[in-house]
This record gives sequence, C-alpha cells and structure tokens, in this order.
Amino acid sequence: MSRKYNFYAGPAVLPREVMEKAQAELLSLNGIGLSILEISHRSKDFDAVIQTAEAKIRSLMKISDDYVVLFLQGGASTQFGMIPMNFLKAGTADYVNTGAWAKKAIKEAGLFGKVNIAATSEDTKFSHIPDDLDLTPGAEYVHITSNETIGGIQWQEYPDTGAVPLVADMSSDIMCREIDVDRFGLIYAGAQKNIGPAGVTLVILRKDLLEKGAEGLTTMLSYRTHADKGSMYNTPPCFAVYMVKLMMEWMEDQGGVAAVEKVNHHKAELLYGTIDEDDFFTGTARVRDRSIMNVTFRLPSEDLEARFVKDAAAAGLMGLKGHRSVGGCRASIYNSMTLEGVEVLVDFMRDFRKRNG
Amino acid sequence: MSRKYNFYAGPAVLPREVMEKAQAELLSLNGIGLSILEISHRSKDFDAVIQTAEAKIRSLMKISDDYVVLFLQGGASTQFGMIPMNFLKAGTADYVNTGAWAKKAIKEAGLFGKVNIAATSEDTKFSHIPDDLDLTPGAEYVHITSNETIGGIQWQEYPDTGAVPLVADMSSDIMCREIDVDRFGLIYAGAQKNIGPAGVTLVILRKDLLEKGAEGLTTMLSYRTHADKGSMYNTPPCFAVYMVKLMMEWMEDQGGVAAVEKVNHHKAELLYGTIDEDDFFTGTARVRDRSIMNVTFRLPSEDLEARFVKDAAAAGLMGLKGHRSVGGCRASIYNSMTLEGVEVLVDFMRDFRKRNG
Repeated sequence: MSRKYNFYAGPAVLPREVMEKAQAELLSLNGIGLSILEISHRSKDFDAVIQTAEAKIRSLMKISDDYVVLFLQGGASTQFGMIPMNFLKAGTADYVNTGAWAKKAIKEAGLFGKVNIAATSEDTKFSHIPDDLDLTPGAEYVHITSNETIGGIQWQEYPDTGAVPLVADMSSDIMCREIDVDRFGLIYAGAQKNIGPAGVTLVILRKDLLEKGAEGLTTMLSYRTHADKGSMYNTPPCFAVYMVKLMMEWMEDQGGVAAVEKVNHHKAELLYGTIDEDDFFTGTARVRDRSIMNVTFRLPSEDLEARFVKDAAAAGLMGLKGHRSVGGCRASIYNSMTLEGVEVLVDFMRDFRKRNG
Repeated sequence: MSRKYNFYAGPAVLPREVMEKAQAELLSLNGIGLSILEISHRSKDFDAVIQTAEAKIRSLMKISDDYVVLFLQGGASTQFGMIPMNFLKAGTADYVNTGAWAKKAIKEAGLFGKVNIAATSEDTKFSHIPDDLDLTPGAEYVHITSNETIGGIQWQEYPDTGAVPLVADMSSDIMCREIDVDRFGLIYAGAQKNIGPAGVTLVILRKDLLEKGAEGLTTMLSYRTHADKGSMYNTPPCFAVYMVKLMMEWMEDQGGVAAVEKVNHHKAELLYGTIDEDDFFTGTARVRDRSIMNVTFRLPSEDLEARFVKDAAAAGLMGLKGHRSVGGCRASIYNSMTLEGVEVLVDFMRDFRKRNG
C-alpha cells in the first residue's frame, strides 16, 4: 500500500507512526480487552487517556495552573459563538480581520454586542497582517486569528493588549512554534490540523475569565461547566482525545515544540526559497507575514495552476489546490508533514517549472 | 489478546467485525493512500463516506424526504439546549420526566420559555413510564426520552401528540427496534450506544420545523445551518461519521432493524427471565416498561452486589455496576452486544446465585 503526501489544509496529515500505534491497539487499549472506541468515559482507562493528554499539552506548551485546558466539541466555529456569548456582554470586543476565519468569528460576535474592527487587511485581499491596531480602551477582549489558512498569513509577533485579554484562534497553527501562553486570556483550536483528528477542540482559558463568563447560558455553552467537570460533563469525543494524546507523545518524541518549530521553519524556508528562485512561482502573502503552515503561491496562469495540481496528485502529492475563494495553489505543511514530504514537493516544483517555465 | 464483554452503559460495545474493518483500513481508506483520520472533509472520498452513512440510515429507518438527517457534535447534552433555543419561543413545551436524562433536558428548556411537566415518574424513583400525560393544547412540542439508561425503563408505545411535534431523545435506544419516524418532529441521539463511537450526534428533523427555528442564533446552534450545508458547514467529526457508516453496513448485514430488534428481544428475555426465576435477583423497573437496552436489577444486599460486579469483571464481564445515583446492577445490552455475550452473562448470574443464594 503506497501512502501519499497529504498537503490538504485540514483535516490534515498525521504522523505515520501515530496512526500505526492507533491501528495496533484499536481492538484492545493497553491490552485491556476493550477498544478506545467503546470503553466508558468513566472508566479508569479512559481517565488515564484524558489526564495524560492534558498533562502533556500543559508540559509541551508550558501552561501554568492559572489556566484550564479543555477538550470540547464543535470546532472553532462553535467557539466563534461561545466566546462572545460568555464574554462580550455590555462592553466592546476588538477583532482583527485577517481573512475568512476572522470574518466568521466577527459575524458571531456581532450577535451578542458591540464589535470594533481594530484593523483589517481586506484591502490587500488578506495578504498581510495589519501593522497597526485601533484598540478600544477597556475592551472585553481582543480577538485575533493567529494563522489564516486561505491567505497563508501568520502573526509573527502577537499584539500587546495590556490588561485586556487576548483571545486567539490557533486552529491552524497551535504548537507549530513556542508561544508564551501567559500573554493570552483564551486560546482555542480545532485539533484537526496540528494536534489530532477532526472532532475535538482544544481550549486553554485563564481561570479568572471563567468567573467572568455570562450567567444563564445553556449548560454546554458555559465554559464553567467544562472546567468544573474536567471536560467530562458529558461524554467527550473519546477517540479524538486519545488521538491527541498520541500526537502529544509524538511531539515529545520529536523533542518538543521548539524542535518541531525548527523543522517547521526549515520546511517553510525550503518551499518559499523555491518559490522565490525566479518569477515562475509567486508567493501571495507579504513576505514578513508568510505562514509557516500554509504556503500560498500562484503560477503564471490558471491553466498552469490546474495542471500543477493535477500532475502533483498523479505524483502522490495531494491537496495542493488553493482555496476556492482565492484560487492559486497552497501547500499546507503542518507539524506532521515530514521534511521528506516537503523535499519531494520542492523537487516536483522545480521539475514542473523546468518543463513548463 | 482476549477481548472482554462490554456491558457498560455508554460509550458501549461495538461489533468486533466493525472494529476490525476500521483497523484494517486505518492507514489507507479504500486504498487511497490517506487515512480517514487525515483526509479533507471536502475530498470526494469523505463525501462518499458521509453520503453513504446518511443513505443507509435513511434506508434502515425508512426516513422519508420530509426529514433531514444531520451529523452534529456535542452529544445529546448540546441538543437539550438547541431544541428549546430553536423551537420553544413564546409558547409552552411539554416534557415528560422519566429520569436523569429527561431532567437534564427539562433544565435547559427552562432557560428559554415555559415548560410544562406533562407527567413524571419521580415518585417511583423513575422505575416506570408515566401512563397518562397532561399535554398542553397547542404546545410548541412534546419531549420524551425514549429510554432511560439509569432506571432501565423504555417507552413501549409512543404518545399520540396530534399536530404537536413529538421530540425524542433516542440516545440510548436508537435503531434498537423499528419505529415510525413519521410520528416524530425531531429525533436525536448521541451515537455512542447503538450506532457508533462517542463524538457524533444524529439528528432527524422534519423539514417544516426547520423553517420554524428561531432567528438570530449563532450559526452553529441553528439547525438550518447544518441542514443547508448537509452537515458540512464546518469540519464534521470525520472518523466518527465513518464509524457510523461501518455500523450501518453491519446493521444491514444483520438483516436490518427488524432482525436486530428480534435479537434484542431475545437477549432481554434471557436476562429478565433469569432475574425472574426466583427472588435472588430483583428487577427494578415496572415489568411492562422494562428496557431492552439497559437491564437493571438488585441482589439481596449491597455486599453481594459489589461481589457480583467484581467477580463478573474477573470473568471478563465488564461494566455491570448500576449508576452511582441508584446503585444496584445494570447490564447494558445495546445492538452490538452479541447473544453469546448475554448467554455468558446469564450463565455467570446463575452460577453466582448458586454460590451465594
């Protein structure tokens, strides 16, 4: 069976060794004779899974006891609503509009209160991260999208919001690099790009904000519910949490976040270097905002782009088509994409350029 | 590796052949060289998975085109809030209080409007299904819990609610028997007992109710969003949906819902028959309301109950402890529990009685 290289934007590539481990113990978790797919979430065996997953996330990201770490469902899209529902209330929330994902978050916030667009890069088709923010003094929070998968742009330095909680959607770049969690009030991320399969959402929330959460929400939409019950108020997505645990073990095996970050930079440099070699490929993001997760580029014509995507797939390089809203090409190179995979892609790109340039 | 018998109340037993199929193709779905854990939800391969899962559910349950079939996240607990949020509005909703699950649904509804408890069996510690309902003329809907896992009681005949939509939480007995979907306005079920692993919630919703759903909800909390996008507004829990597809193929292989129902009755009769043989075991549910999914019973003393659960586990019969809120013992025998598993349990029960009676 020939495995292919998965450059899809998400759900995205997982390490082969992680999937092999899951496969090997799918019928019997740790030899207990029951599968992770069927064990009770109240069993001690599952408790060990979710506790280990949380402990490893805390250790890898250096998360202090000032934060709760939650495993929720519904993806970032559910968080887009839960955040303003819990925290917007009577004040104003600042949002930075950097692309399609930020826009979705902004739309939901508007249902609950006053939203100030602190900056937008829509004028450049979201090809850059805004340089200056017009922040509201005393805002309830400032919301950013740390990486935009469609534009291929990524915050290189997070804004200083002072005492105002910084809230970040890190769905597409969580654990791709070292960050200082203490700078954030809330970090959330669908797992399916860097830390697991689709079906679980990681939320890292500063405890003082828990108390500020709105009253009168439905039980499942209050962060307090999940914090009070250690993500076990109701049945969690057990298998997805288990896969996150395996991913965290893999991260440790790689040497932790710093080591993975180093490889990520190397992969990104290889790709951007190839793009910048001449005028055949053109990167679409402003150079200093280039994402190390989603590398977006154009070819001289749409015909060539279509052929590039098709020929790449024939060569086992899957998912290189850009998002339908912007066209072009995109290589998503999340944590689990190997350096070897990027080298194969770069070889293919150079060869394609030679044949068509 | 010795597999054990899983009598947990949920997440619950899955058929061995389903797990073996998932295991066999975990690294390469249909030989495409990518795993179901990592393929894009926009790929044609995943589209085939979710379309097939829906088609098979429609066929197995004989669901007409008047209904949408949705795959959501967040479990029944999220539905407890979404239902009144979408449908309660200015009127009254009738709820039947049959146990812990019904109570949770009632609590959430109270946040959104007027709730009438049409009947309750709390006076008998939820050991029966109420016989008479005090329904509100012109109610927005009537909500029932078709099976209560803790009390071990199950509606044998659904109430006639006339033009008022009947809403049912079928999390613990969906597809355990043939039902007439046309009698319901909305059916919902966490997958993790009868139709898959934890992490996906099935919703079957009559289309005319879609239009009646409240305006101004967050995108993810409106049923219209998911209906309009075929459960793909955002990334679905791909692996859990895939497992539902495998479960539906297994249901077909068993001969469909009617055939599975027949086995379920046979399993339940074996267990209740053993309980009723003498006074050592005592069933806790009123006989005519006995669940064919969760068989609840007591032994002569709590000491004997503890020993029963412990000895059973030592014999590979797992999860027989009753819910902590009521004590006693419980055998959950969902669709995937084999007749053989129940026969082994019955033999164990008789032997235990002989040794301790």
